[in-house]
Amino acid sequence: MNVVIVRYGEIGTKSRQTRRWFENILMNNIREALVSEGVEFKKVEAKHGRVLVKTNRAKEAVEVLRRVFGIVSLSPAMEIEAEMEKINRTALKLFRRKKRELGLEKLKFRVTARRITKEFPLKSPEVQARVGEYILENEESEVNLHHYDIEVGVELMEGKAYVFVDKVKAWGGLPIGTQGKVVALLSGGIDSPVAAFLMMKRGVEVIPVHIYMGEKTLEKVRRIWNQLKKYHYGGKGELVVIKPEERERILEKLRELGKEKYTCVFCKFMMVRHADKIAKDFGAKGIVMGDSLGQVASQTLENMYIVSQASDLPIYRPLIGMDKEEIVRIAKEIGTFELSTLPEDEIPFIPRHPVIRGSWEEFRKLYKAVFGEEPGKGEC
Amino acid sequence: MNVVIVRYGEIGTKSRQTRRWFENILMNNIREALVSEGVEFKKVEAKHGRVLVKTNRAKEAVEVLRRVFGIVSLSPAMEIEAEMEKINRTALKLFRRKKRELGLEKLKFRVTARRITKEFPLKSPEVQARVGEYILENEESEVNLHHYDIEVGVELMEGKAYVFVDKVKAWGGLPIGTQGKVVALLSGGIDSPVAAFLMMKRGVEVIPVHIYMGEKTLEKVRRIWNQLKKYHYGGKGELVVIKPEERERILEKLRELGKEKYTCVFCKFMMVRHADKIAKDFGAKGIVMGDSLGQVASQTLENMYIVSQASDLPIYRPLIGMDKEEIVRIAKEIGTFELSTLPEDEIPFIPRHPVIRGSWEEFRKLYKAVFGEEPGKGEC
Repeated sequence: MNVVIVRYGEIGTKSRQTRRWFENILMNNIREALVSEGVEFKKVEAKHGRVLVKTNRAKEAVEVLRRVFGIVSLSPAMEIEAEMEKINRTALKLFRRKKRELGLEKLKFRVTARRITKEFPLKSPEVQARVGEYILENEESEVNLHHYDIEVGVELMEGKAYVFVDKVKAWGGLPIGTQGKVVALLSGGIDSPVAAFLMMKRGVEVIPVHIYMGEKTLEKVRRIWNQLKKYHYGGKGELVVIKPEERERILEKLRELGKEKYTCVFCKFMMVRHADKIAKDFGAKGIVMGDSLGQVASQTLENMYIVSQASDLPIYRPLIGMDKEEIVRIAKEIGTFELSTLPEDEIPFIPRHPVIRGSWEEFRKLYKAVFGEEPGKGEC
Repeated sequence: MNVVIVRYGEIGTKSRQTRRWFENILMNNIREALVSEGVEFKKVEAKHGRVLVKTNRAKEAVEVLRRVFGIVSLSPAMEIEAEMEKINRTALKLFRRKKRELGLEKLKFRVTARRITKEFPLKSPEVQARVGEYILENEESEVNLHHYDIEVGVELMEGKAYVFVDKVKAWGGLPIGTQGKVVALLSGGIDSPVAAFLMMKRGVEVIPVHIYMGEKTLEKVRRIWNQLKKYHYGGKGELVVIKPEERERILEKLRELGKEKYTCVFCKFMMVRHADKIAKDFGAKGIVMGDSLGQVASQTLENMYIVSQASDLPIYRPLIGMDKEEIVRIAKEIGTFELSTLPEDEIPFIPRHPVIRGSWEEFRKLYKAVFGEEPGKGEC
């Protein structure tokens, strides 16, 4: 294989101008991914609605590029001169290789040809017929358009033919860097990395922020972010760690007032307050959180209302409508689940009965008791 | 069949008290669903972590209850006395019926038994062995624990046996009514019904609000809400339609100032403003929108920032991390896709080039020019 065909989805639906811009960002992210992972390549170029990556390490490249957002599918392919005989021989070679890989005796297959540009003299159905016949002559097999073990692809464009037998699904989404920046709060749990991942998938650069709880948890969050970075080519974010100096003061006051049950809501409110500050320093336009409604008793609309008042920025909660099961499935797929289940520092101040439906009025009073002023809000 | 076994997931992980409360809401929603759809039943009761619905119309009941949130899976079953001989005969009968349904000659099957309460004298593996042998004696078939066409289930509890051969997957989530209320903006497009659906799935009662655009679109939204209502048993929401009187004034002023490009952002801002008011009237704690980042050029973090300033309530955007393809897949599954693609009123005032990255400062000035005051915010 000497090339990877990169197919992108949604970018294709944009206006021509936007599309050119998106393609360029996608190509940059592809280059960055390959360089970071040490996969050599000769050239990355956009052609007729697809990106071609010239490389002799196509299989490795595909493994890396599966994690670049904006890409829908990938095929390691052979680029050759567009001559019928060469196409036949290459198709047969790839067919045989795939057959060995599958370990099947008698195969069903089909050939799918497309003329991306029209200078090749034969039309697509004829190319399909010729390649199919050639394979049938040389290998015991059978053509079946609906149930097939191998699909041989032939794309014809600008005097070249691209022949392939694999089409690897990627994540889709949009290239990172097309949608600006947001701050993502990472706690060390299962949910917050998945939330950050889903925003990244939609083209957002993420600035990961962790509110310090202890060394063990911090180490864990570092590992989680290192894993997430494998999907963040094109983004620059380095983990920002904040040691919340106000914590002792809050805990003491809540204890004094017998309102320990507000500890968690307070803690989350302060997290968002810190995230808000970082966001404004870095020019980020929102905050991502891993909230899923009702997952624990205290993840209520009331408590989320209170927490949302800590910033004028929109809080994005991509998991809000998901069940734990779905979140865990994604966490496993992206490789953060195991890291999220590593041991972390015990938090001694979690109350036995956190408030379920916190009251904004009561929270305001508590905030005033601790800080001597109204909670306020960034821009208000 | 004379009973439906209803299995619920996440509820089972809650504290005992919460669980009792959730079970009661779930049972009420089940009753409401069956009554609404005219499926007769005798009794709905909670027993040992499952709900039993006594009915002679078990198959129909299953079809309805698949749309009740909080339910993970359903089995139409035969409730009989827990005697080995009766269990064997019932299992064989259901096995035969299922075999005819599948239309297969020689079947692989397995038996899975569970003692929910322990008074039955034989242990589960022995029950499995007996039932398996009985079927093998009477039907040409083969036991295979891993690859099977039929799984015969036997659950033993309080002197009764429940025998079944089907396990139908439902949506999961949480029972509607356990998580309070939110307002959902319904536009008539593909996305907003899916967003409302996902919030409902997490146990939220939805108050649907439509901002009037014309009769054709309104009729369409009515049909969409009628479809969504089939998932809303336990909720009361009736479509609220708002005719925005300020529209002409805004359009005129924007035209006068040559700022038509802000029309869409303004329009969405006002939608949220109206939703905010309705939410406060109805005691709802948030607003749901169908935004998916970057889906159209103007769905940017900047524009969502502006729109978010219209209310102090959290705006929930369950689709924010999803690709169009995923949203369409859900819309098709829940039956709103076709309705969303019906024709709607043309909107004459959509600008040719909507603002991509709107500025909050500029928006504020425009707002002031139209209304003579700062945009403000509910509670601020």
